Amino acid sequence: MAEIVVDYNKFDSLFHPSSIAMVGISADISGAFMMRILLEYGFQGKVYPVNLSGREVLGLKAYTSVKDIPGPVDYAFLQVPAHAAIQVIRDCAAKGVKLAALFSAGFSEGDKERGTELEQELVSIARQGGVRLLGPNCMGFYCPAARVTFCACSPRESGTVGALCQSGGNSIQLVRSAVQRGIRFSKIISYGNAADINEADLLEYFAEDPETKVIIAYVEGVKDGRRFFQALKAAAQAKPVIMLKGGQSEAGAAAAFSHTGSLAGARKIWDSLLKQAGTIQAYSIEECLDIALALLLMKPPHSRSAAVIGYGGGATVLAADDCYRAELFLPPLPQTIKDELKKVIPVTGNILINPVDFTLLYLSPEKMAQIVRIVGSWPGVDLLILHLRVELTDTGLVEQKLLEPLAEAFIGAAKEVNKPTALVVHAVYSVESYQGFLKVQQMCFDAGLPCYPSIQRAASAIDKIIRYHQTK
Amino acid sequence: MAEIVVDYNKFDSLFHPSSIAMVGISADISGAFMMRILLEYGFQGKVYPVNLSGREVLGLKAYTSVKDIPGPVDYAFLQVPAHAAIQVIRDCAAKGVKLAALFSAGFSEGDKERGTELEQELVSIARQGGVRLLGPNCMGFYCPAARVTFCACSPRESGTVGALCQSGGNSIQLVRSAVQRGIRFSKIISYGNAADINEADLLEYFAEDPETKVIIAYVEGVKDGRRFFQALKAAAQAKPVIMLKGGQSEAGAAAAFSHTGSLAGARKIWDSLLKQAGTIQAYSIEECLDIALALLLMKPPHSRSAAVIGYGGGATVLAADDCYRAELFLPPLPQTIKDELKKVIPVTGNILINPVDFTLLYLSPEKMAQIVRIVGSWPGVDLLILHLRVELTDTGLVEQKLLEPLAEAFIGAAKEVNKPTALVVHAVYSVESYQGFLKVQQMCFDAGLPCYPSIQRAASAIDKIIRYHQTK
Repeated sequence: MAEIVVDYNKFDSLFHPSSIAMVGISADISGAFMMRILLEYGFQGKVYPVNLSGREVLGLKAYTSVKDIPGPVDYAFLQVPAHAAIQVIRDCAAKGVKLAALFSAGFSEGDKERGTELEQELVSIARQGGVRLLGPNCMGFYCPAARVTFCACSPRESGTVGALCQSGGNSIQLVRSAVQRGIRFSKIISYGNAADINEADLLEYFAEDPETKVIIAYVEGVKDGRRFFQALKAAAQAKPVIMLKGGQSEAGAAAAFSHTGSLAGARKIWDSLLKQAGTIQAYSIEECLDIALALLLMKPPHSRSAAVIGYGGGATVLAADDCYRAELFLPPLPQTIKDELKKVIPVTGNILINPVDFTLLYLSPEKMAQIVRIVGSWPGVDLLILHLRVELTDTGLVEQKLLEPLAEAFIGAAKEVNKPTALVVHAVYSVESYQGFLKVQQMCFDAGLPCYPSIQRAASAIDKIIRYHQTK
Repeated sequence: MAEIVVDYNKFDSLFHPSSIAMVGISADISGAFMMRILLEYGFQGKVYPVNLSGREVLGLKAYTSVKDIPGPVDYAFLQVPAHAAIQVIRDCAAKGVKLAALFSAGFSEGDKERGTELEQELVSIARQGGVRLLGPNCMGFYCPAARVTFCACSPRESGTVGALCQSGGNSIQLVRSAVQRGIRFSKIISYGNAADINEADLLEYFAEDPETKVIIAYVEGVKDGRRFFQALKAAAQAKPVIMLKGGQSEAGAAAAFSHTGSLAGARKIWDSLLKQAGTIQAYSIEECLDIALALLLMKPPHSRSAAVIGYGGGATVLAADDCYRAELFLPPLPQTIKDELKKVIPVTGNILINPVDFTLLYLSPEKMAQIVRIVGSWPGVDLLILHLRVELTDTGLVEQKLLEPLAEAFIGAAKEVNKPTALVVHAVYSVESYQGFLKVQQMCFDAGLPCYPSIQRAASAIDKIIRYHQTK
């Protein structure tokens, strides 16, 4: 098996600093923004601005060098030009800084020759001085337990998803997208050009991290293919790894090289490598979160036999087709179940097979719950997809206020049935209905049910977790 | 070629009634909703409620039979139980009604034997009496020019998309989704079980309709395969036909049968039939609109060579991959163009190949416009995809107020370049950013540019229209 390079405890302590130096921070707003985010997020330890002028920043005394800081410094965040980084890292080494993150670009991703040289020099100084590096060209890390973040919208609660993300922008996007979906993180580590700490280190770390139940990885390229593959395989054996590989196309690979200096490699090689390693491959940040939600909130379904229950005849027909394309099977309901349904639901204008459409019942949340209980209790199905539309009807008959009772009925019945269940709230268009959508999503989150904006996305995520569980 | 069955003018007049009878309408809110929608939408002709009690509805005098209405009646909308429909259609025939739409379910889609019989009786009475039927199990039609609609959110302006839609719910969904996307309709005809007027009639009608430039068809099953195929082929030769086929899976087909009494048929047969007929196949209502937008607002691209311009390194890498998967080609920029770009954009922290990322420029809309002009003027690319994020940055540096100038810069430059261009506003999460998204979408609509919520959806729509234009 793979040789583990990372010392878990040592590594973990890097992400729990007691004191932070924000280097290159000037007093003007554009230089101080990362520090402001950190302070507003509520970091409890010491924060030391460092800049050439020594002028105070956001009310905090500044220093002209890391070395001048009176107390110890665990973590340094560097926003300095590439050419100035060498000296700062020397200072960090002298000061005993444990981890330095380089926000700055202008290394191997830019000028291949000079930038790569600079990067190597940086790493060698850091290594000699016992400093670990994140980046260059990264956002640092987000660790709710340590009250450290790079993103103003970061939730304060810790969660169970750990993410390594080679792109700073995608790291922010990951937090932003996850907030509303109800996904919380143990840590997100933005690692940019991976000059020192790389994807293999982080996979090893997250594989061991007891806080982390699911790993999301956005990777553009790897430093050492053999070690990466072993770390990936080991991580995927320990817990689900959802992989979004950036730079799968020629143009994407060229962009990845310009972005993080990564050699992205051929798509087919990656496809088979990710499959062999037992990872779950995703193609967008949204899809990473779709899959993470299913992994976290759905028990592994015993089979691909699903029941689809909702309202809208056309929506129901299309729901069945979407399930089919995701290779979910909708077994026809037996007569006994149909007979039970007929006691609750009028046959006319409804579809009582599987998918089940009860357009004529959406006015009655209680009856909706009953349908879910009847269909869900049938041993012929092992998972449920329940769908509703925020714009329930356009007739003026049903108000938005019915939305919550309807969602509540679905959620309550799903809990009773206790089979893996996803809730779908169909895409919406107006600001009002978007608010309704967010409300239902929050209700699902509170109840521990995964919520999706379309049957297609729910079905695809379920398909992927079933495939994953089958390989275990 | 196909024998044309439909007399265009006669057919078209059906959708421009001067007077409407709303039959089965009671004075209570649940019975009167369709009438309220019609009145609020501003129908200019006479509206006559018909119900058993003869009690007035929404302030209008009611009649106990269609036959008692004093003036002529062009269109009757029936919300009566299946068993009562026969007599009403008899009355309609006696009255000289030209078109009757049956909202009611309970025909061939429900009880196969008795329902089909009832439906056939209905058709035979209607035909003898010179009444054309829509439905049963349909919403009637939406024709902005005639001020007739079935949906409270219907725009008053006419557009150039004509839709035939076998599902009433999907018809409403089509209007709702289209409103914000900036798509307007010539007519949407909801035709349900297709007992009389069917998909072939409607395809023939829309093929000839000078108001209609693009046809969207949601079809679950067909009555006469041979005639349908000929009508579809003829329509697709006259103008683009986007087809969403409901019931492609076994469960979906069973649902379609329960929904509109349709025999949906095997997926593979449909796939090849739709391809042979020269239609563009879509898999969701959203995708129908994505494709319609591209058809209406993008000139046919000369080739698959695209340039992708936006900000965010990771987003740019993923954008390239999404284009690749849609078989769009991003040719590397030549040195001359790169040299021009370097005068505007710093190399460090940006990606100057193709895709082009100018993260460090998003504060300057003017420079953004310059980049688009430089790249867009290069003859090596025949289409542009420009992308921006509503949540520009999370740093607190850039406010939402920069969004509009940025979008304006993109739109203005795209107009100057005058190559087929799509704008992408990446998916957003908070209510505020959703409002920003809607704002930019509206700006695009006003400027005549198609707007998409993801690169993936833009690229896929462009791929489909390129394939379509190639077959012409």
